[in-house]
Amino acid sequence: MNWEEISGSVCPIARTLAVVGDRWTLLILRELAMGNSRFDEIQAQTGMSSFLLSTRLKRLEHDGVVERRQYTDRPPRFEYFATDKGKEFDAILLSMRDWGVRWTPYNEGQPLPLAVVVRATGEAVEPGQRLPAGAFPFRFDECVTAISPAFAHERDLRRDAFFDARRHPRGVDA
Amino acid sequence: MNWEEISGSVCPIARTLAVVGDRWTLLILRELAMGNSRFDEIQAQTGMSSFLLSTRLKRLEHDGVVERRQYTDRPPRFEYFATDKGKEFDAILLSMRDWGVRWTPYNEGQPLPLAVVVRATGEAVEPGQRLPAGAFPFRFDECVTAISPAFAHERDLRRDAFFDARRHPRGVDA
Repeated sequence: MNWEEISGSVCPIARTLAVVGDRWTLLILRELAMGNSRFDEIQAQTGMSSFLLSTRLKRLEHDGVVERRQYTDRPPRFEYFATDKGKEFDAILLSMRDWGVRWTPYNEGQPLPLAVVVRATGEAVEPGQRLPAGAFPFRFDECVTAISPAFAHERDLRRDAFFDARRHPRGVDA
Repeated sequence: MNWEEISGSVCPIARTLAVVGDRWTLLILRELAMGNSRFDEIQAQTGMSSFLLSTRLKRLEHDGVVERRQYTDRPPRFEYFATDKGKEFDAILLSMRDWGVRWTPYNEGQPLPLAVVVRATGEAVEPGQRLPAGAFPFRFDECVTAISPAFAHERDLRRDAFFDARRHPRGVDA
């Protein structure tokens, strides 16, 4: 059995995995959910090679999960956004957040890396609690989010490391 | 950045992916959630090579997601079960079911491959609806499930194909 066959399974979990069942793909969707839309910024935060990121984005575009919009002509450059199909995947990311907070503890007592509040109702979306009625179906773009200092710092470090490495390729101008 | 680094991220989604972010791993967890506990039966339903399945199960055991119990001495044979950590992953499988039903349609109008009802309350757990209060936190082992004829048939076909191929390896006794 291969993933082409699995995409034709009666089981909706198997069909979902055939579309997005790859760690890198899920990290890309996390970045899009956080409003990160630029190729190199996504690369910086995921640590993917540009070949791998490009391959995964093309596949997601083909599957209707991601859309690409051109934002400059010369050179042609694109931004990437989740479609409705991609945005509704946020519910899966959120359930991963819940599980991760509970089962892969990290810096307990620190604030959540991303505080999430339903924009329309002001309800907090807390791990370990049932989704507020106003947050269903869950989409990050219907929420207000606030990144924690620790997560912002981790992301800044990644970003700096990525763009530094690009400006100063190892062995070229050491 | 590699997955060792990602497992140390502040982000609980990234940490979750570092444990289970592999399609095969998620299919294994689906099988355990369905009560399939035998190595070769899991292999039959996932189509994994025995090497790959064995590697993934060892990793899940190491991460505390799966436990192994011996059920015969000679030869030594084991069954595999989700731990609490693994069982609480069911919430993620359920959110994948929701997304798959909605965005990867298949035989619309047919019954769901797995009907799920909370044992304690009799509430149905339906895709596209907020989780019933009695189903939170979600675990399949707190539900009664009924497999649809189409999904049962698909699984029977897979099982037959797997065990037939094992009894009659191609080219050996054609």
